[in-house]
Amino acid sequence: MHTVYGNSISGNCWKPAFMLRQRGLPFRWVEVDILAGASRTPEFLAMNPNGRVPLLQLPDGRRLAESNAMLLHLGEGTAWLPADAYERAKVYEWLFFEQYTHEPAVATVRFWVAYLKKHEEWREKIAETMVKGYAALGVMERQLGRTPYLVGAAPTLADIALYAYTHVAHEGGYRLDDYPALRAWLARFAELPGFVAMPCKGP
Amino acid sequence: MHTVYGNSISGNCWKPAFMLRQRGLPFRWVEVDILAGASRTPEFLAMNPNGRVPLLQLPDGRRLAESNAMLLHLGEGTAWLPADAYERAKVYEWLFFEQYTHEPAVATVRFWVAYLKKHEEWREKIAETMVKGYAALGVMERQLGRTPYLVGAAPTLADIALYAYTHVAHEGGYRLDDYPALRAWLARFAELPGFVAMPCKGP
Repeated sequence: MHTVYGNSISGNCWKPAFMLRQRGLPFRWVEVDILAGASRTPEFLAMNPNGRVPLLQLPDGRRLAESNAMLLHLGEGTAWLPADAYERAKVYEWLFFEQYTHEPAVATVRFWVAYLKKHEEWREKIAETMVKGYAALGVMERQLGRTPYLVGAAPTLADIALYAYTHVAHEGGYRLDDYPALRAWLARFAELPGFVAMPCKGP
Repeated sequence: MHTVYGNSISGNCWKPAFMLRQRGLPFRWVEVDILAGASRTPEFLAMNPNGRVPLLQLPDGRRLAESNAMLLHLGEGTAWLPADAYERAKVYEWLFFEQYTHEPAVATVRFWVAYLKKHEEWREKIAETMVKGYAALGVMERQLGRTPYLVGAAPTLADIALYAYTHVAHEGGYRLDDYPALRAWLARFAELPGFVAMPCKGP
């Protein structure tokens, strides 16, 4: 059985749980209290030297870090990862866009505001970061005004990865009024068969 | 023929150029002056709405952003991307580690110091970011003390992605004295057949 070491408030941790459910694979969820430093203990660092969740343990005991690496690993051979070389490359493109451009702005502001309660104290830093977050959402809006999902007519791993923090962006104070295609996509994604909202702890 | 829109000082742009040469594919290099805002013009944004280099144009005219997506696309079917499912997943893991944890610290400090010349002005921000950069290098050191390359005995796309900015980390002020396995890996990588250093503009 797979094991996910994760934190229930984390969109990154929701990704492998969502994909394991899509695959019909039962899994064990081990809650890691990141706010209390549980991902930086010697025991956890022995499992993931980078000290982050999620961490996926495969049935044979081998481990894998990085949420989008988990999506690619678990998505191989499913309709979530297209066989066509260019569509597949576009999935990769969105996955790296998510981790480099989107998550550091959209997820980070949510974490600061909703969990660290730094809304007042870090007002300036939050405002600066939200400019980047809105730009990232704008890149998505542009694509979603053209295709129902990020890589075309059908949902892919790209949509899972971007849904993770986009659907809770409002918890950080982001307003999506000017992003109609993105809002329609959020609603469309949530109606997919087997959809499971956050938190997504168990099978 | 492929076209790479890139900037010669960018490790991210070196990645697709390196891989195209490994594949023996001729390509055209279009220099984009990012310091002058050339990746944010309406013309460039029409090609890549995210306003970043590198941008890869395929022979059929379709385009692909994100340097590590290019590595995966160009590396498919070569020894740089293992067929074994777990080794392949570990390549993915390192590619996301590179973009999320390594590049924002190692490449960013190099850019601030060597190109923006902010060594004095941003001293505090640089020191804070270097703590994260050394931690990322530490994750690599730990693995490279165990295996010659990041995913095992043979080089993979993971090594290309991490080589890009690690081998110029010193330009930002990083010292690798305490990272002997990493230094040995840098030397090992540079001796691979077909190795081409930065800048890597042409075929």
